[in-house]
Amino acid sequence: MQPLTTSSRLRNDFPPDARYLIGVSGGRDSVTLLHWLISLGYKKLIVCHLNHQLRGRSSDADACFVQKLVATSNEKIVGQALRLPGRQKGKQSACPTTKMSHIDFELGRANVRSLAKKKKTSIETAAREARYSFFAEAAKRHCCHTIFLAHHADDLVETFLFNLIRGAGPIGLAGMRSVSTRRIDGVDLTIVRPLLSVWRTDIDKYVHERHLRFREDATNKTLAAMRNRIRNSIIPHLEKNLGRNIRQNIWRTAMIAAEEEKWIDNEAPDFTNLHLLVPGLRALPVALQRRAILKWLRTQNISEVGFDVIERVRSLADRDAPIAKVNLPRDRHARRRAGRIFLE
Amino acid sequence: MQPLTTSSRLRNDFPPDARYLIGVSGGRDSVTLLHWLISLGYKKLIVCHLNHQLRGRSSDADACFVQKLVATSNEKIVGQALRLPGRQKGKQSACPTTKMSHIDFELGRANVRSLAKKKKTSIETAAREARYSFFAEAAKRHCCHTIFLAHHADDLVETFLFNLIRGAGPIGLAGMRSVSTRRIDGVDLTIVRPLLSVWRTDIDKYVHERHLRFREDATNKTLAAMRNRIRNSIIPHLEKNLGRNIRQNIWRTAMIAAEEEKWIDNEAPDFTNLHLLVPGLRALPVALQRRAILKWLRTQNISEVGFDVIERVRSLADRDAPIAKVNLPRDRHARRRAGRIFLE
Repeated sequence: MQPLTTSSRLRNDFPPDARYLIGVSGGRDSVTLLHWLISLGYKKLIVCHLNHQLRGRSSDADACFVQKLVATSNEKIVGQALRLPGRQKGKQSACPTTKMSHIDFELGRANVRSLAKKKKTSIETAAREARYSFFAEAAKRHCCHTIFLAHHADDLVETFLFNLIRGAGPIGLAGMRSVSTRRIDGVDLTIVRPLLSVWRTDIDKYVHERHLRFREDATNKTLAAMRNRIRNSIIPHLEKNLGRNIRQNIWRTAMIAAEEEKWIDNEAPDFTNLHLLVPGLRALPVALQRRAILKWLRTQNISEVGFDVIERVRSLADRDAPIAKVNLPRDRHARRRAGRIFLE
Repeated sequence: MQPLTTSSRLRNDFPPDARYLIGVSGGRDSVTLLHWLISLGYKKLIVCHLNHQLRGRSSDADACFVQKLVATSNEKIVGQALRLPGRQKGKQSACPTTKMSHIDFELGRANVRSLAKKKKTSIETAAREARYSFFAEAAKRHCCHTIFLAHHADDLVETFLFNLIRGAGPIGLAGMRSVSTRRIDGVDLTIVRPLLSVWRTDIDKYVHERHLRFREDATNKTLAAMRNRIRNSIIPHLEKNLGRNIRQNIWRTAMIAAEEEKWIDNEAPDFTNLHLLVPGLRALPVALQRRAILKWLRTQNISEVGFDVIERVRSLADRDAPIAKVNLPRDRHARRRAGRIFLE
């Protein structure tokens, strides 16, 4: 499916004999990723599935499906191991299934709808946050801090356009990276996306050729009306009208943007104090002011911050600003007093 | 037309009693900009018009139109000055037109079609390069290094999408800034775009209300088929399907991207030598490697460099790269030898 260099680089950076988490919804993409990783020799995987409880029985069925997938994967691994000539001659374990299979299963449940209500966010945001919290928990429990996720090239392009349309600014345009780290609930999680340069059509082909079974991804149907519109209307229209390989070009831009974003983010100072010192902020170039504010707001548990919010906080540092208080999401405020910006 | 703060900031940063160049094609946008600047009190302007010779007589007629526009603008300025109560009582000049009017006219000619052929670039690129060369010449002749250009908010959005579609990467996404500097033929030109936050509809309104005459912009008709498709098909489709203020959001992203681009560009080291030292390049983060290569190629007179070209040169710095020579546009090559990358 992938050019050999990519899979060899993956095996080089993430040796197959180590243990890894993998997020599996049961949809086409994650089923493919699991199958592909096993075929590459990754056999100490911990399959993580969060039941979002958004579609009742259908969500439960997804969980059952993934559980069965884990069982059949284990059977295959055992089968392969038993067929190995070296093994056949050796002494067989009394219980090969437990000793030789290494695909574990982690099942979580979250009431995403009530989380969204409680946190006043969209269902999509609440689902994502719940999923990452669940991954972080699993990472802690298994002492395994690297997770494979099945985002592919079309996801990257769609996310890029989605963020562009929302006006998220370059911070949002960066989207996803092949390898990134994220601190979630005190856990540093390394997120690896081996399929980020693989297109949906290649995944379809892979699934078809290998007769893989999968569940129609719940998120595709219920969570993302806007994303579906981007996928089914915007991108085809762009391709039809511009006669160019628009997807590849956006993909390329998104990949570079992600690289630059990572670097800018490293360059921006961390303000971890409760307040932000106005002279320190003012001394930075505008690009870094924005990043520094974003990072500071995140440490103050204000996430999902758009460009507007950042600019509002930044306006407090303006020497001539007549205002000393600005509104933030979820009924919070930022205020400037005595050369400091703080939250209320 | 603009919020008062913007025009007062413009007058603050660029005092109206100083001299400025202004690019005037004779089209709606530049006619509006000229009219608006004069109304704000800018009366020492040097109108620069380059005859691109792309549409024969029609191009000549554009030049004539701009020349007449300068003359009538001068008449109006003189008229205004004569009507000022203070002036009426004072001693009148024998020749008010020459003494009191300050709109000068600079006319240039370029055979853009043959330039494009010679330099193996698109007509649009050749036209732009010829225009900037002409502006730089005018700047030298008048000892006046600041030029006003009439790019507006829709131009910014269209350029952003155009570059996205071409896959120019974030370097290209940055597009235009309200104020930027550019070194052209040894001249440092400050480019000011006072209309960059004004939408085309506002310009139309301005033109209509003041009964301004203008020429249908040649560039709109002949130079930019792709841009026209973006303007007339892509953006309306996005707006219709996404039901959001897509143009404003893209505009916002483009404005931030421009700010970040400026900063990253400052951060990237200048390699002005004939060769690029591989260890020095390798020591930089990927984002800066790309910028440094771009800057270096520009000093070596390789402009119009896309992401592909940059990545090809960057691949030469790869420790494991099997290749030591890559192709560049216009039959040039980059080669690595003894820890150095140089051009042939």
